[in-house]
Amino acid sequence: MTGLCQIVGMGPGDPELLTLKAVRCLAEADVVAWFAARGKPGHARVIAGDHVTSAARTLRFDYPYTTGVSVDDPAYLEGMGRFYDDCAAQLSEALALGRRVVVLCEGDPFLYGSAMYLFDRLSPHHRCEVVPGITGMSGCWSAACLPMVHGDDILSVLPATLDGDRLAACLAQGDAHVIMKIGRNLPKVRDALRRAGREAQAIYVERGTQPEQLCLAMERAPDRAPYFSMILVPGRRRPR
Amino acid sequence: MTGLCQIVGMGPGDPELLTLKAVRCLAEADVVAWFAARGKPGHARVIAGDHVTSAARTLRFDYPYTTGVSVDDPAYLEGMGRFYDDCAAQLSEALALGRRVVVLCEGDPFLYGSAMYLFDRLSPHHRCEVVPGITGMSGCWSAACLPMVHGDDILSVLPATLDGDRLAACLAQGDAHVIMKIGRNLPKVRDALRRAGREAQAIYVERGTQPEQLCLAMERAPDRAPYFSMILVPGRRRPR
Repeated sequence: MTGLCQIVGMGPGDPELLTLKAVRCLAEADVVAWFAARGKPGHARVIAGDHVTSAARTLRFDYPYTTGVSVDDPAYLEGMGRFYDDCAAQLSEALALGRRVVVLCEGDPFLYGSAMYLFDRLSPHHRCEVVPGITGMSGCWSAACLPMVHGDDILSVLPATLDGDRLAACLAQGDAHVIMKIGRNLPKVRDALRRAGREAQAIYVERGTQPEQLCLAMERAPDRAPYFSMILVPGRRRPR
Repeated sequence: MTGLCQIVGMGPGDPELLTLKAVRCLAEADVVAWFAARGKPGHARVIAGDHVTSAARTLRFDYPYTTGVSVDDPAYLEGMGRFYDDCAAQLSEALALGRRVVVLCEGDPFLYGSAMYLFDRLSPHHRCEVVPGITGMSGCWSAACLPMVHGDDILSVLPATLDGDRLAACLAQGDAHVIMKIGRNLPKVRDALRRAGREAQAIYVERGTQPEQLCLAMERAPDRAPYFSMILVPGRRRPR
């Protein structure tokens, strides 16, 4: 008996942005697993909606920490390591019994997705497959009607968790930029955009492709941003 | 009568990676348009397959140049500008009659997609919408089972058309890299990877998510690469 673990991208939020393959994987799944913050349903699970059938066993993995803990704390890294070990052990059991396991992942799994830590642990022992999803950034720049990169523009994707000097230096180079994981980092990002002279072109997108979607010029962005927000700086516009 | 122009991403090649929304747009379309190289069916059209219904009028736009012309030639830019003007005029006619027009676009439309040049021309005058697609890069790193970026890794997307020194300088910075538009630029890219000390981690992916897919360590990559190939350099692996 050989199980199959499919790590499946759920896209940025609009359930119509699921792929045909994601829908098929869910229809065929014996076990469906996902990560969620404590007390929340889990964004990936909400997107999957009724495509998760009642025939599938569901496994919900609650993150052990809230955003209150510093990610630089070695105790945090160790705690997260133990958490992912435990999740992988639960999935491994189902896989050893020959089950088809689907791990739901918001956006695209291999672009900053937590499911990568399960892939690292499971792929040496079990058959694993990754089904790409629409990235949060594609969802946001499409929602904002913002053509991002043309011709030989360079695109850089920057996590807002970087320190302000590094962010400003990156923003001063290259052509187009996506700044992810905004949340509480918004004031630092705004300052970095100003220092790099890129604030005027920047667009703030909150909950892109979802019904509550908000697209604003950076100057009009709120002071507090949710985790599901992003800042986009488009590349040079080419004469064509 | 108000027409609607939908620029719809077809994803990287596997027809199962179409989104539910792309399928619906095609089912509802009055006109379906796409770009193609002369004498070829057009990659986006092939992916769309039978989702293009016989009820829709089809418009195929043949690129006026083959790869034999330098993109730096001002005559090329001017010729392409006239070509896009003419395509937009044809679509504009249908939109003025209230038609639903779908423009097929391989990958994700706003990530180096030619349909951006139609969006620029049509959006000031007609209702336009962009439906994101699975990017070629997500398709390739999923196919290669290559987790790309973790934690606060920076990802940069570099067109292989950049000059070798610029490529090498970019590759020496940042964490993860995607090099697009390989084709005839392969020897230059290989040299830039070597100079930046990143060749050993690089993975060459040809026709990712398609039946003829090929994933190879860069050292074993062929000397000639098709246009639909990409080189991936994953970010730092984090201890978790």
